[in-house]
Amino acid sequence: MKSGVASLLNAKRFVVFGATDKEEKPGYVIFRNLLNAGKEVFGVNIRGGNVLGQRIFKDVGEIAYQVDCAVIATPAKTVPVILRQIAKRKIKNAIVISSGFGEVGNKKFEEHLGNLAKELEINLMGPNSFGFINPYQKINTSFYSGKVSLGGISFISQSGAIGAGIIDKLKSFSGFVSVGNSVDLEFSDFIEYYSEDEKTKVICLYIESLEESEGKRFLDVCKKCKKPIIALKAGKTPSGKRAGRSHTAVITSEEGVYSGVFKQAGIIECSSIKEMFSVANVFENVENLESKACVVTNAGGLGVLVSDYLSENEVPIMKLESRLEKRLDKVLPYNWSHNNPIDILGDADFAREVDVFKILEKEKSFGFYVVLLTPQHMTEIKKSAKLLTMLRRPVFVCLLGGDKVDVAKNILDRENIFVFDDPKEMCEVIGKAI
Amino acid sequence: MKSGVASLLNAKRFVVFGATDKEEKPGYVIFRNLLNAGKEVFGVNIRGGNVLGQRIFKDVGEIAYQVDCAVIATPAKTVPVILRQIAKRKIKNAIVISSGFGEVGNKKFEEHLGNLAKELEINLMGPNSFGFINPYQKINTSFYSGKVSLGGISFISQSGAIGAGIIDKLKSFSGFVSVGNSVDLEFSDFIEYYSEDEKTKVICLYIESLEESEGKRFLDVCKKCKKPIIALKAGKTPSGKRAGRSHTAVITSEEGVYSGVFKQAGIIECSSIKEMFSVANVFENVENLESKACVVTNAGGLGVLVSDYLSENEVPIMKLESRLEKRLDKVLPYNWSHNNPIDILGDADFAREVDVFKILEKEKSFGFYVVLLTPQHMTEIKKSAKLLTMLRRPVFVCLLGGDKVDVAKNILDRENIFVFDDPKEMCEVIGKAI
Repeated sequence: MKSGVASLLNAKRFVVFGATDKEEKPGYVIFRNLLNAGKEVFGVNIRGGNVLGQRIFKDVGEIAYQVDCAVIATPAKTVPVILRQIAKRKIKNAIVISSGFGEVGNKKFEEHLGNLAKELEINLMGPNSFGFINPYQKINTSFYSGKVSLGGISFISQSGAIGAGIIDKLKSFSGFVSVGNSVDLEFSDFIEYYSEDEKTKVICLYIESLEESEGKRFLDVCKKCKKPIIALKAGKTPSGKRAGRSHTAVITSEEGVYSGVFKQAGIIECSSIKEMFSVANVFENVENLESKACVVTNAGGLGVLVSDYLSENEVPIMKLESRLEKRLDKVLPYNWSHNNPIDILGDADFAREVDVFKILEKEKSFGFYVVLLTPQHMTEIKKSAKLLTMLRRPVFVCLLGGDKVDVAKNILDRENIFVFDDPKEMCEVIGKAI
Repeated sequence: MKSGVASLLNAKRFVVFGATDKEEKPGYVIFRNLLNAGKEVFGVNIRGGNVLGQRIFKDVGEIAYQVDCAVIATPAKTVPVILRQIAKRKIKNAIVISSGFGEVGNKKFEEHLGNLAKELEINLMGPNSFGFINPYQKINTSFYSGKVSLGGISFISQSGAIGAGIIDKLKSFSGFVSVGNSVDLEFSDFIEYYSEDEKTKVICLYIESLEESEGKRFLDVCKKCKKPIIALKAGKTPSGKRAGRSHTAVITSEEGVYSGVFKQAGIIECSSIKEMFSVANVFENVENLESKACVVTNAGGLGVLVSDYLSENEVPIMKLESRLEKRLDKVLPYNWSHNNPIDILGDADFAREVDVFKILEKEKSFGFYVVLLTPQHMTEIKKSAKLLTMLRRPVFVCLLGGDKVDVAKNILDRENIFVFDDPKEMCEVIGKAI
């Protein structure tokens, strides 16, 4: 691992180039984010002045302290000069927020930047980066301005804007990194870091393209990674690629090849943002999703749909042994399904649910529950939800309904209970997580 | 069309067999539902007595008025006798809520019921039906006990329990019908009815299996239907079929054959409950989703993903003519995408959005908007949302984020604005609706 990543993501003292009092500028938001989190942060701007009560230096040379990390949010053309300045000050880490490089066709200039970082021995994130967030160290060098809580998902994104949306949606992270155009630090470097990071339980990637030179190392690093890796690849179709940023040398432009690489690397490929983070949420909360599913439903139709979806997603389901069948016979009406899905029937009340789950809790032949709940006349949704929170194995719940099931969602929103509003979505997530 | 369906779904006077004061019984809920809606409803129960302040008759012969529809919620074995009793009273419509027929293996008994209905010339819905709801006539013969509002979707379901969940989720309908085991009235009869029903704009079907005898008529009726039909087929895999109810003679058990039949019949097949009702929602609100998409995004990455998804779902997108490109050049920064998706860039403020949409509103070369919004630093989400409600073509919006975009959801929840939280889901729905 490049030792640089650790020193970058855990930097103590920062300098923000382009610090300004113009609230619409990244240089303002980043300076404020670092300041508000209680970090030691210095601002540099050729105009000098004051921002948020802090003196702004005209030159990084004026700062008396040794700084760990420079965040550069100035026009593209100024970046090389700044890199030389910080090299002189022995600042080893730089995040280049500035855009106007490869993504707008200035490839030569971008290459120059990469070479300069190597020559000066600076760990460079970017350019065209959205910054990074390390919630456990209370560091936010991005221009995302909301609160981030502590979690177990680390997200490495090639799109800053998607990053902003995801952070706002998920709220809790172990890390967020926007690699930008990756002239120096790239996916592999951060995957290596998060593989060792004890707060990270799962790593998510949003990938538009990998440089050809990066391919082999990416494969090696992913294979060795100690955490599950989930990836979403954008730009798979010709029109998607047109919409994407051009890259000088991508691994390949053919559809399907990335999927092959992901498979080889042991990466779980997802097809949507939602799916990626639903699967990540399972890995974040469950060590190993083992063995077979036990499906319990109060709606026969949902049982049929879920059987289809589990089968399509290759999720094994527990065979109902006659021993267990006989036990269930004692607490269920004669016309229950005698099959897994266990249809406890639409007129099931809370007492019947308790009886069924008491029996199932003693069973060892399955690894997790899949529960399908619709608001039938006898359903006591609050009680049902509380019952589910007491089960000792992971539970996936599909709640089909509106107001009548909404109350259950809040109750179920805790560890090991995964709530969905559509059975297909739920089964796809289980299929990826297993 | 069997004239019976119209007289059943628009009945004025009802009799409920099995009316009771036991609140957990369907006979209670249905009687209460009809009574609360101000319908003329009589209760019959061999025990007599009073329910909700109404005299309960011991025999249907005691009722002095001509009744249009009987709802039967008594044990299975009593149903044939009751059918003979109502035939004597010239009651032409019956809903058999009672279960214990084909679905538990009593096929002979079920056949007998079908033959009896034909002999007595009774339009029979069921058995094992959840009832029907006609919101425009304020009729609820089901045991769903919530409020239903007026809408344009009619839903014909082979699963009562899924019906209950869907009603609770969607809230507004033009009709809901639970066909149950279909010994008499079947899918085709109701499709014919809703084809003519002026309140119905789109018909949704949840199908587990069709009787072989029903196949040809189903095909004919669907081909002639004046409304779009959307179907979800359950029991496509062997394990799904095992979980489903057994039927004496389904069209076929082979996977894929239903899809062929649906295609031939002009039915739009969906793969999940959520997708079916999202697509229905588009048909409910937009007459014809015509021509090409114009994609506007403030997040480049989302633009790439959406290009992939639109392409995968065969949604054509507008080619950006140089005329339009030049107009947009005047209001966008030099590094905008020059491509559709139109990337207005992450630093887009409200003024830039207004400028872009002013230009696009004058364009004729596309039929609808696809808008991708993530909460960037400069995004004024409320204003953006209000701007979208002013556009004169249908708008599909994907909001990627949490608290910061939630406020926009409420604003956008009106006609012609379709809001999604995942771009893949959105593009699949557009693909089905186009």
